[in-house]
Amino acid sequence: MNILKNAKIYAFVMILAISSNASHAQITNDLTHDEALKALLTAKKNAEESKVLVNIAVVDAGANLKAFIRMDESYLGSIDVAIKKAKTARYFNIDTGKLGELTQPGGIIYNIELTNNGLVSFPGGLPIINKEGKIIGAIGVSGGTIDQDRAIATAGAKAILY
Amino acid sequence: MNILKNAKIYAFVMILAISSNASHAQITNDLTHDEALKALLTAKKNAEESKVLVNIAVVDAGANLKAFIRMDESYLGSIDVAIKKAKTARYFNIDTGKLGELTQPGGIIYNIELTNNGLVSFPGGLPIINKEGKIIGAIGVSGGTIDQDRAIATAGAKAILY
Amino acid sequence: MNILKNAKIYAFVMILAISSNASHAQITNDLTHDEALKALLTAKKNAEESKVLVNIAVVDAGANLKAFIRMDESYLGSIDVAIKKAKTARYFNIDTGKLGELTQPGGIIYNIELTNNGLVSFPGGLPIINKEGKIIGAIGVSGGTIDQDRAIATAGAKAILY
Amino acid sequence: MNILKNAKIYAFVMILAISSNASHAQITNDLTHDEALKALLTAKKNAEESKVLVNIAVVDAGANLKAFIRMDESYLGSIDVAIKKAKTARYFNIDTGKLGELTQPGGIIYNIELTNNGLVSFPGGLPIINKEGKIIGAIGVSGGTIDQDRAIATAGAKAILY
Repeated sequence: MNILKNAKIYAFVMILAISSNASHAQITNDLTHDEALKALLTAKKNAEESKVLVNIAVVDAGANLKAFIRMDESYLGSIDVAIKKAKTARYFNIDTGKLGELTQPGGIIYNIELTNNGLVSFPGGLPIINKEGKIIGAIGVSGGTIDQDRAIATAGAKAILY
Repeated sequence: MNILKNAKIYAFVMILAISSNASHAQITNDLTHDEALKALLTAKKNAEESKVLVNIAVVDAGANLKAFIRMDESYLGSIDVAIKKAKTARYFNIDTGKLGELTQPGGIIYNIELTNNGLVSFPGGLPIINKEGKIIGAIGVSGGTIDQDRAIATAGAKAILY
Repeated sequence: MNILKNAKIYAFVMILAISSNASHAQITNDLTHDEALKALLTAKKNAEESKVLVNIAVVDAGANLKAFIRMDESYLGSIDVAIKKAKTARYFNIDTGKLGELTQPGGIIYNIELTNNGLVSFPGGLPIINKEGKIIGAIGVSGGTIDQDRAIATAGAKAILY
Repeated sequence: MNILKNAKIYAFVMILAISSNASHAQITNDLTHDEALKALLTAKKNAEESKVLVNIAVVDAGANLKAFIRMDESYLGSIDVAIKKAKTARYFNIDTGKLGELTQPGGIIYNIELTNNGLVSFPGGLPIINKEGKIIGAIGVSGGTIDQDRAIATAGAKAILY
C-alpha cells in the first residue's frame, strides 16, 4: 500500500512536471572574454580621462568573475565592492542604484543586502546588454563618487554595443 | 555554603524537569519529502499560471533544506533569498513579512537580519502547517514582486492541507 | 611623456586583446528546470528502488543550484555534500570520484578541496550532458555508499538523454 | 610599583624602537596596473598559443587582486584556484609547487593550506619579480595541467622583465 501511495504521488509529480511548457533546452547568451576585456579597458580609459581611480569588475551571465582590474592608488576596499556591484547587477538584472531605492528602512526589500554573501545597493553596478537586447553579464565600478562610478560603468557596458 | 547553594539549585532544576513533560521523547511533526515536493510543484504551477519567474525553497521542521527549484530565467540572486525566506519563516514560526515590521530602525528587534547567517524580513516566507495545526516546515519564494512571492508561497503552503 | 607611455601601453593591450580570435558571442547550453526535475525525480526513483536514502542536488551550467530534494530520514549532513558534489562536478567538468584520484597526499592537486568554499572529491557528482554532447549542468548525490551515490547520480544524469 | 614596572617596560620598548631601523618609512615596490595587465595578457597569449583554457590572476605586493581574466570555456572552479595560487605565491614569496613539497602528511608545514582562508600548494602560482630583483606581486594560473599552468604563469611573470 505504501508503494501504491508512492506510485500515486510520483505520478502526480510527473504530471505536474510535464504539464509545464519549457520543453526545449535553454540557450544562454554569455559575454566572451574579449567582450569582458573591451568593457574593462573602455571603462578604465574613461576613468583615466576623468582622473578617477577605480576598481572595475566584469562578471559573466552566471555572475562569475570574468575580468578585473584595480587602478594604481585606488581604494583597497573597492576590490570587493566592485565585484559585489557587478554580481548584484547580474543577480537581479538591475542598476544597483535602483535596488537601493527599495532596500532603505521602510522599503519593500529592506536589508536584502544581507543575502547572497553581501549585495551592494548603491550606484556603480550595471547589467551588460548585447545588441540583441540580451543580458550577457554585468560590470561593477568602485572608487570614485557614486556618480563617477556609475558613469564609468556605463561607458564600460556601452562598449559592448559598438 | 557554595555546595549547599548548588544543591538547592539542583533541586529546583529537578522540580522544573519533573513538572514539565520532558520525561518522554519529543515527537516532532515534520513534513515528508512527498509533501515538500507537492508544496514546491503546486507553488511552481501557481507561478507559471501567474507568469512569474521564481525560486522556491522548502525547509523541514529542523529548518534544513528539503526541496528546491529555480525556474528558468528567474533571478540568480533569488536562490539564496528563497532559501533564507524559508529558513527565516521556520526559525521564528512567522510570515517573513510580519518580521519586517519589527526590524526597522527603532523596531524592537532592529537588524535581527544579521543573525543566523542572514535572515530575510520581507514577504515571501511562510510556515507550512499540517491539518492538525502543527508547523512542519516552511516555504520561501523569491523572484516576483513581494505580493506575488507571498501569493505563490501561500499556494505552496496550502497544498499540504488537501 | 607619461601620457605617451600610457598611450603606448594601451595600444599594446588593445593589440593583444584584438589578436585573439573569439570575436563572436558565446552560446551556453543550460539545462531547463524541467530537465533538472526529470534528473532529480529519476534519481530519487532509482534511490527508492535501491532502498537508499539520499540527498540529490542539480546545478545549472553556471554551477548555481537548480533543483534539490532530501529524502525522509536521509543524513542531514548530506544536504551540503550533495550540493558541493554537484558544484564540484560542474566547476571542473569531472566525475568527482576521478578528482579524488588526483587530490590524495602526493597527488598533483593535493588539497584542492580547500578552494571554492569547499569541494568534494569522492564519487557521487557527475556532469549532466545533453544529446549533443554539451555539458549543461551537474548532479550530486549523497547519503548512501559511494557506489550507491554514483549509481543514483548516473541514473539522474542519463535521464536527460531520453 | 605597578607604575614603576610599566615605566621600565616602556623604556625597554623605546630602546628597542630606537635600535631598529624603523625610523624611516618603508618603501614597497609594487607592480603597476599596466604591469599587471601586461603580465595577464602575455600569459593569456601564451595560453592561447598552447591551446589551453585558463583563468589568470595577478595580485600586487599586498597580495590584493590587481587584475584577472577568465578565458571562455575555462573551468568555473579555476576562478578561485587562480586567485588563491597568486595570493599563496605572494603570501610566502614562493613558487606554489615548492610549497606542496612541504605540506604533505609528515611534511614540516603539513596542512598549512587551511590557513589564510585557503592556500593552494601545487604548481601555477609564482612571485612576480622586477628588474631590480624585488618581489612586486604574484601571478596565479589555473585550468590546464599543472605543467601547463606553471608554464603560462612563468610567461606572465617574465613579461615584467622586458
